[in-house]
Parts: sequence; C-alpha cells; structure tokens
Amino acid sequence: MNIRKIKILSTGKYLPKKQVTAKELEFSLGLDPGWIEKKSGVLVRHFVEDETASVMGAYAAKNALEAAGLSFKDIDCLICTSGIPEQAIPCTAALIQEQLGALDSGIPAFDINSTCLSFIVGLDTISYLIQAGRYQRVLIIATEVATGLNWEDKESCTLFGDGAAAAIIAKSDEQEDCKILSARIETYSRGAHFTECKGGGNKHHPKDYAGNLDYFLFKMDGKAVYRLASEITPDFVQRLLQDAGLKMADIKMVIPHQASLMAIRLMRKQLDIPEEKVMVIAHNHGNTIAASVPMALHESIVQGKIQRGDRIMLLGTSAGFSIGGIILEY
Amino acid sequence: MNIRKIKILSTGKYLPKKQVTAKELEFSLGLDPGWIEKKSGVLVRHFVEDETASVMGAYAAKNALEAAGLSFKDIDCLICTSGIPEQAIPCTAALIQEQLGALDSGIPAFDINSTCLSFIVGLDTISYLIQAGRYQRVLIIATEVATGLNWEDKESCTLFGDGAAAAIIAKSDEQEDCKILSARIETYSRGAHFTECKGGGNKHHPKDYAGNLDYFLFKMDGKAVYRLASEITPDFVQRLLQDAGLKMADIKMVIPHQASLMAIRLMRKQLDIPEEKVMVIAHNHGNTIAASVPMALHESIVQGKIQRGDRIMLLGTSAGFSIGGIILEY
Repeated sequence: MNIRKIKILSTGKYLPKKQVTAKELEFSLGLDPGWIEKKSGVLVRHFVEDETASVMGAYAAKNALEAAGLSFKDIDCLICTSGIPEQAIPCTAALIQEQLGALDSGIPAFDINSTCLSFIVGLDTISYLIQAGRYQRVLIIATEVATGLNWEDKESCTLFGDGAAAAIIAKSDEQEDCKILSARIETYSRGAHFTECKGGGNKHHPKDYAGNLDYFLFKMDGKAVYRLASEITPDFVQRLLQDAGLKMADIKMVIPHQASLMAIRLMRKQLDIPEEKVMVIAHNHGNTIAASVPMALHESIVQGKIQRGDRIMLLGTSAGFSIGGIILEY
Repeated sequence: MNIRKIKILSTGKYLPKKQVTAKELEFSLGLDPGWIEKKSGVLVRHFVEDETASVMGAYAAKNALEAAGLSFKDIDCLICTSGIPEQAIPCTAALIQEQLGALDSGIPAFDINSTCLSFIVGLDTISYLIQAGRYQRVLIIATEVATGLNWEDKESCTLFGDGAAAAIIAKSDEQEDCKILSARIETYSRGAHFTECKGGGNKHHPKDYAGNLDYFLFKMDGKAVYRLASEITPDFVQRLLQDAGLKMADIKMVIPHQASLMAIRLMRKQLDIPEEKVMVIAHNHGNTIAASVPMALHESIVQGKIQRGDRIMLLGTSAGFSIGGIILEY
C-alpha cells in the first residue's frame, strides 16, 4: 500500500454558453424525435462557440480557486490533463497559464495524457510530488472540445459535449484523514485501435487532411471496446480495492468516466453497485472526454453527494486501451 | 533539497534509415552550397520513410532494454515524452506498447508533454513515483517525426531531424550514489505564441486544414525566443545549482536540448561553460525535438564522455515558454 496524504482542496467547472438539447440535435441531424434519448440518453450537452479549450480551462480554474479562497499565485504547479490538446504546440497547460494572465509567473505548466483517463493518471502521478513536498498546491485542469466528431456517425456524435473541470490538490493537514488509499493504471494495447483519431499527430501531414476527412475524425468500435472493458474491469476493480484493503461496500460513491449512460449502467451491473452509489452526469453534460471524471467529482461535491471523510472511487477507461482508478478518502 | 535515489539503468537510440545531408537538402531546396552549414550547422539529419513515431520508439526501447539486459516484462511503467503525438487518439505510449508486442501486458502507458522539455519533465516527475516504490523500472521514450515542417521557412526546416531515444530508470541500490540532486521547471506563458503549431489540436477542425496549410505548420519567432531564453536562463541555472548545493564547476557535463548549434553556443557563452563540458549532437542529428536530450544523454554515455558518479546537468527550453533542468549523479 502506497498511501498519499493528499487532499482535494476544491473543484471547479465550466460549461460553454451554448446549450444543445437532444431535440435540437435530432432536428439538425434529421433524426426521429426521441432517437437520442433512446440511444444515448444525453438530453443536454454544451458546445463551444467562441470559447477555446484554454479559455474554458481558465474559467474552471478560477471557479476552483474561488471555492478554495485562493488566487493563482498560491499555486505552484499547473497540469493540464485533457485527452486532446488545443494546439500541437505548445502544451495546453501553458495556454491556460496565459489565459489566467500569469504570463511571468514561472509556474511550471505541462500536460499529462491518457485520453479519457488523463485526469485520473494526472492526479495519481502528481500526488507523489505533493507527498514528497515538491509542490504545495497543484491545479489540475481537464478541458475538452470535441472538434473531431464525425457527424455522419450518429451513435458517437450524439454522445459528446464540451467543457472543463479543475481541481486543486494539496497535502492534508496532520489532523486530517484525506488521502489516496490506492491507485492503479493498466494499459492493454490489444485495444489500441478500437478507439482512435488518426490525424492530429505526426503520422499524417496536415496537407493530407482535406481529402481524407473521415480518416481524421474520431472512430470507435464500440462493441470491441465494450467486450474488452467487460473482460478487464471486474478483476481490475478487485485489485484496486484489495490495494486499499477495502470492499466495494466500503465505497460511498463511484465516480466513473461518463463514456455513455449505457456504459455506466453495464459497469454498475457488472460490479453489482447500487444505482445511488454511482455518480451520473452524462445525461446533461454528455461525454466530456477527460473532463468527465473531474466534472462528475465536482457535481458530487456541490450536490452534497459526498462529504469529507467519505471513501470514493474514481474509475474510467480510455483509448489505449487503458483502465484506471483511484480510491481516496475525500 | 529533494533528493531522489534513482538511477538511469540504460539508454537507447534509434535513427531512421534515411540519412539526409546538408548538401542533399541544399540541392532539393534550391539553396547555395554551404548555406546550411553556415546557417544551422546541421550537416546530417535523418528523416522517416516508412517508420512511424511508435515504431522508432519501440526500436529505441529495445536498444535500451538490451543495454540493461532486461526484457519488456521487467518494466512496470511506460511513459512517452514526445513533443508531438503520433495520433490525436490514443496516446503514443499505448502505440509503443503495441509495437513492443506487449498487447496484454497491462503495463501502464501514458504521455507527458512539455514540447521539447518533455523528457526532462517526464524524468523529473516519474522519479518521485520510483522513489516512493510505486514503480520499479520505468521506460521513458521520446520519439519524434517533424511532420509539420514548413519547407518555405529555410531557417527552421534545415534544423530538424527525426528519431527516438529511450531511458530505463530504477531505484539506486543502497551502496550506489546515483541520484537526482535537483530539478526545476518554470513556465513563462508570455512566450506561449513565440513557438507554435496551431493545428493538430481541438482549436481548428481538420476540414479547415487544406486551405490554411501554412497556418498549421510549425512557426517560430526565433529572435523573441532567444531574447526570452537569454533573460531567464542564467538565473534559472543558478537556482537549479543552488537547489543541489553545487557550482557550475562541479558539473562534469551539461547535456542541453539541441535546439540549434547557435542556441547551444550562446547558452554556453552566457553561462561561461567550457566547450568540452557541453554535449553537442545537433550537427549530425539535427534538432530532434523532445528526443534531443535523451539522445544527447545516450551519446554522452556511449562515447564515454560521462561515467558513473559524474554529476551532469540536463537543460532545455521549450515552447510554452518553459525552461527545465535536472542535476543528477549519473
């Protein structure tokens, strides 16, 4: 066991101004009324208009700073944990630092990426640096714009939403019980191509994009992902609980990646978790990629569903194929 | 001071099969003979043909594993620290795990990105997890393909090269002195747009690429970067040395990011370091982005320029603008 005495000081969230209902999307995509509710269950999501990922990230950060009664000068490390960067160069964390107006702050800013698991991997990783005293207060931000959606693929394009979430992490005080009890990440590259977007990196030259648009858009073999996730998840969660010396009954709330309402439902059944112990925000946020876990964490805090001292589990899967989880005493 | 008793077990390197000389490049770009030698000093670089970033990364990893007498099953974490990913989704580390044939290994694989500083940030960050016993042996890989080069910009396009490097990191044995003595990263987003590539992320849709090709290619305001780097570097290096309780004279070898021969020369003069104490590989590798620091580290080891027990400094700047360094006892 590798306990880290760290605390989530506060969280923040930002949703783009433009809200799009299932009804509006059904109309613009020429789908029958009710199709989206039946298929994906995402009744409302938000899409950016003039907002960029770094702008949203900065708003979520300010929201978290305000909740903690801090200002950005109290932060000594900024990590962006988005699935997709804003630009190829520089990293999104630097662009968020710029949006926060901290141009000459020198506060280290870098990105950690494991697609939809980025926040979990980032929190897990940076907790060791906080525990060791390298950083005192770290701002972790996930901010996503689903630019690469393929509007021909009705199943996936009706699932996603844009938005950002942030969390501020620090060492717990002596008398506090807040801590990370266990964390695991596992990658099974057998599923590396089940979920992918081939463009955007150095594999293909931008000049080849126009003629191959669908090649560069988001693609997912949902059935293959589901099979792999179903196969790996139960044993993974068992290992995660065992590392913490706990049983599922000891967990107050599971905060899963909001891949889709169906995926959450299946996970819940497979792990035999009662409905009230699983945080769901997909119906009015959509799948906000790596922002979905910290957004759901934020909502579970502001809705009063978790309290200090509660044991919670962050859990998700990502393209890669990776699975990751953290059990913490909030 | 925050010493981490970790050791670089081994390093590895891979260069693409295709070697391109300054002469060949001058011919194909219609430049006068000698122009490249005079301007950038990069006499030889390698460019990928059929190799992808993950293929090169896997070759560099195998090279490092062989040097350490290990196989991939001895590794328990794989981190890709490239400036540019291979694809937007999934992260490059997962694609490298796939190329290593470890499809069902479950070995965690994720990316850390701070453009050209990614390897330094990755090594610094993960050293805390090794120190704490979370991982026993971590494979860090930087692999780069300079896809986004703008061939109209002769100054920048004649600087870069493709390639990969890897390092295996573990805890030092009790009786060994190998350790990280100090590490710092600082980000000054005043320079966020001095070096950038606006495409490849979620800011612009792939459908907008064809008509705006130059907008999506690599752009650098060399003068602005140089001014900012010159302003920040001397004090930064002083802080880094002070954290380690050392003076520059205690450092056996500085291993800088190989931005360009001119940049290295200016840094050397500004910091008053004798020529033989700065590792240079830019002349026959080019600027290989985040792979340049681990490549130069690898070359300084295989060329016998550093020995166990030597104190070395890894040092670099990146888009962001970030500056980072590590002082370690090799």
